[in-house]
Parts: sequence; C-alpha cells; structure tokens
Amino acid sequence: MSTRIAFLKGHGTENDFVIVPDPENVIDLPSAAVAALCDRRAGIGGDGLLHVVRSSAHPEARDMAAEAEWFMDYRNGDGSIAEMCGNGTRVFARYLQRAGYVTEGDFSIATRGGVKPMHIAKDGDVTTGMGKALLPEGDVTVSVGERSWPARNVNMGNPHAVAFVDDLAHAGDLYSPPPCGPAGAYPEGVNVEFVVDRGPGHVAMRVHERGAGETRSCGTGACAVAVAAARRDGADPAVTGTRATYTVDVPGGTLVITEWPDGRIEMTGPAVIVAEGEIDTEWLENATR
Amino acid sequence: MSTRIAFLKGHGTENDFVIVPDPENVIDLPSAAVAALCDRRAGIGGDGLLHVVRSSAHPEARDMAAEAEWFMDYRNGDGSIAEMCGNGTRVFARYLQRAGYVTEGDFSIATRGGVKPMHIAKDGDVTTGMGKALLPEGDVTVSVGERSWPARNVNMGNPHAVAFVDDLAHAGDLYSPPPCGPAGAYPEGVNVEFVVDRGPGHVAMRVHERGAGETRSCGTGACAVAVAAARRDGADPAVTGTRATYTVDVPGGTLVITEWPDGRIEMTGPAVIVAEGEIDTEWLENATR
Repeated sequence: MSTRIAFLKGHGTENDFVIVPDPENVIDLPSAAVAALCDRRAGIGGDGLLHVVRSSAHPEARDMAAEAEWFMDYRNGDGSIAEMCGNGTRVFARYLQRAGYVTEGDFSIATRGGVKPMHIAKDGDVTTGMGKALLPEGDVTVSVGERSWPARNVNMGNPHAVAFVDDLAHAGDLYSPPPCGPAGAYPEGVNVEFVVDRGPGHVAMRVHERGAGETRSCGTGACAVAVAAARRDGADPAVTGTRATYTVDVPGGTLVITEWPDGRIEMTGPAVIVAEGEIDTEWLENATR
Repeated sequence: MSTRIAFLKGHGTENDFVIVPDPENVIDLPSAAVAALCDRRAGIGGDGLLHVVRSSAHPEARDMAAEAEWFMDYRNGDGSIAEMCGNGTRVFARYLQRAGYVTEGDFSIATRGGVKPMHIAKDGDVTTGMGKALLPEGDVTVSVGERSWPARNVNMGNPHAVAFVDDLAHAGDLYSPPPCGPAGAYPEGVNVEFVVDRGPGHVAMRVHERGAGETRSCGTGACAVAVAAARRDGADPAVTGTRATYTVDVPGGTLVITEWPDGRIEMTGPAVIVAEGEIDTEWLENATR
C-alpha cells in the first residue's frame, strides 16, 4: 500500500462508485480497504468499488481476455465480492472512455457474470447487454401493511417481484423488505419493484433491494420491470417478433430498457464522473490496520 | 467555473467535509454547487463544505485578517451558510497544516462565529477554542416514547438539552426530534444529547441534531455534555478554581473537552484527510445548470 493510489468517483442514475484504475493488477484491495474507501463519512463513499484491471492480468478474467480487454473487478460497499452491477458497467465504460482505452461504439467488458457487450452512443449514453430474463411459473404476491398486489416473478440472474400499483407512495417507507408470497417462492430473498404507468412505454419504479433497503436505482430491477410490463401489455417480443422498449424512471434518473425477440435485454442510461484524485495512503493504512 | 477546482475530502470524528482550497477567493461557490458537491450519491459527499480563503480576500473576514490569516467559509451540505462547525475547524486546521500554511502549535482561524484559537499537538490532535457556555435557568425535560428524563439546558451559541440516561439504547432510533419541555423552552428547536457514564471523567453520548437527525458527532454537543457533567459532578471550574476535563465518546470517535475557570471551553480531537484531487468542472456545470 505504499504506492500512490489513484481514484475517481462517479455514478450511474445515482448508484455511485469509487473507481480504482489498476491495469496491471498491482494494488492490493482487501475487503477492509474496500469497506474503508466506500464508507460515506470516514472514507470517500460509494455503493461499491470498481477495480479496473486488464483481463489478462487478473486470474478470474484471463479466460475472457480474448473477448474483453478490461475486467470489472466489482466489490460491494462492505468489501464483499459481487458478480455484476448493471449501473456499474456504465460508469466502468465511461472511465475506459475518459482514459482513452475505448471510444464511442461497441466493445465488451469482462465481469464475474461473464462477458458483457457494451455500446457508448454519440450523446454519451451507455448501453449494457444484460442477458436474458427467466420468468418462473406461478403467481406471487407483494404486501405492504394491509395492502397486497399480484406480482410478476422475474429472474435476471437475481430474483425480482414486480408489482404494478396505483401510487408509488403505497410502497411506504421501504425500510424493511415487503413480504412476498407464497412461502418458499424466494428462498434466497428477493428484490421488490413497485411500478406505476407514466404513459405509453413509460413507467416509474421504486425498489427495495435485497439486503440494502430502498436504493436510488437498480439496473436488473429496471430490466425486470420492463419485462413484466411487456408481458402485461401483450408486447412480449418472443410473441410479437419485434422489440419492446420501455423508459423506466428510477429515483436517481432514467433508464431505457429494450428486449429483443431472441430475449436479449439491453439497458441504456447515463454515466457520470464527478471527480478524480489520489487516495491518502497513510489514511488507508491507518483505516485498515 | 471553467478553471479546474481542487478538492480534498476529510473528516473529524466522522463529521465529514468536502474541502475547497481557494486562497484568493476566486472560485464561485453558489449554494447549488455546494449542494451538488455534498450530495453523497450524485456528488462527492459530505456533511458540509470548507471553503478555505485568506481572510484578507473575503469581505466577511477582512476585519479578522490581522488576527487570523485564514477564513473558514463554512457551508452546510444543503448549500446554506453556517456560522461555525467545531469538527470542521479541526479538519480545516489539518488542511492548513498539510498545505504548509501552519505548523504544529498555536494559531487562529477566522469563522463567521468570530476568531477561534487553534492548536495542533505533536501527536496530530487538534484543539479548538469553542468559547463559553451559557446555562439558562429553569428545568427542562427530554422524552422518548413513554420515558422522560430531567435535562440540563446548555447554550454553546446553539441550544442543547443534555439528559443523563442509564442506557444509550433508551434514546431509540432518533429519527424524529425527542420532545423537550416545558413548552417554549426552545423556541428555535434544540440539539438533544443522551449521555451515559463510562468511568471517572469519561462519558459516551448520542445526539439528535436540530434539522439533521442522529449524527456521528456534534462538537458543540460534546462541549454541552462536558459542561453538564461537570455541574452534575460538583466540578464546575468557576467554583473549584481548577479546570474540568471530560473524555466524550461520540458514535464517530472520541473528543476531549476541557473547561477552564474563566469559562473557556476547549475541544480536542482527531482530523483526517482521506483523499485529494480535482472536481470535474463539466460535471459541476451540468449539475448546477
């Protein structure tokens, strides 16, 4: 830890990250260091950390190096390892662009969830290939207080329950996880989305993320919402043969989700770099001692 | 806003700040820019911002320039102007030391609350002269749910109600302001401290700050707690003729408060710089447009 450590801070629809560029994978980032950096008051602050490493330099990504030059070594804010973060991929791509490693157009990045196709548009918006949704059979319900709604069970690699409601305020304060039924439907917990219509192809959502409470944005949640809305609206691309596109307002901004007839889902949204600098290594050594 | 803007991030007992060095007072920092910088997800994040300006270069501090070379132009996280911030003065002093503007020992800084004497010790701890306390006459009480406690009314430039309790958990979740009586005792609201004993001259506190909810640290609150403890313990320095010193544990660390026979109160604690760098001016322009 005696070398200087560069960092940036950025966000995608207010899902925010500490970015640590480290092409040759020489910076030691134990979970205690990640947690210290992501601490909002004692550190820099972020929902998670994006460790930017060449795929060829990281043992978990070497197999993907031929397809994707850069590996998003994503960590949760508590320092634990995570497979993927949809909003994180956009901020990761923006950093690569800013650093001159990629330009507008198509490229791929490696993640623990596999290689993800990316696209940076002329207007700066970033698109991520989010894979396909699974829609497990069976009815589920979501409850808040005395109210209960039928919900759509959507799996985007992680489980979601999507409930269409009349008013987002009906979701309440979302401090605790809204109960989902029937018992056993979500043995490992679930992310719960509450959705209202804003217009044709346009919805707004609030989300309770499993283990995190209400958040400003959830990329897989927005995808699950678009998939559920397409099924509700009779616009399942596998049936109609044409893509379905929904604009999804989240508390931290707006995402556009497109599902294709072959089931692939793309998420498009903003990505912002706020500041860049150097971490005080003496502080980090003390914080993780 | 087209010039590059340097910043640092630091904290004192986890009261955290964005620091913007600007000796000649050339950076325009309207409240929208301060709020954007202090936003924890869309910006850098902080409880407040420390704008570091030479007293001679700031109209509000010119009169203090002979006594104090540097002016702490303090802003709340929402961009509003504030008079003073005790924890902020330590982080401000640490920045001045890091930048080579001051060295260990005594110096003074200018604030909207007047000139404050400062001291940086060899071990790095920073001491701030916090002025004197007023103790308005009359009994006050603090309530949480069904419980109620007698409290000490202490004014440190801002109003405090200090209640000694058996268990800090009795303060509850502190989401909303604990009611203080009698009606009219605190017409402009009050900061409420809950205090337990940890040993001789050693207490621990939790605080509900007026308008902010529970915080990790409150400098004037720790001073109010030490003053109330000295009165309770028969150690009022004005009576005993000797100073009273209390170690006050706050959720974000530890402060040491000394009251002198002439009433002056000194607060000593840590101050930490976490990182430094440059703000992305394109982001800031977009964020405040």
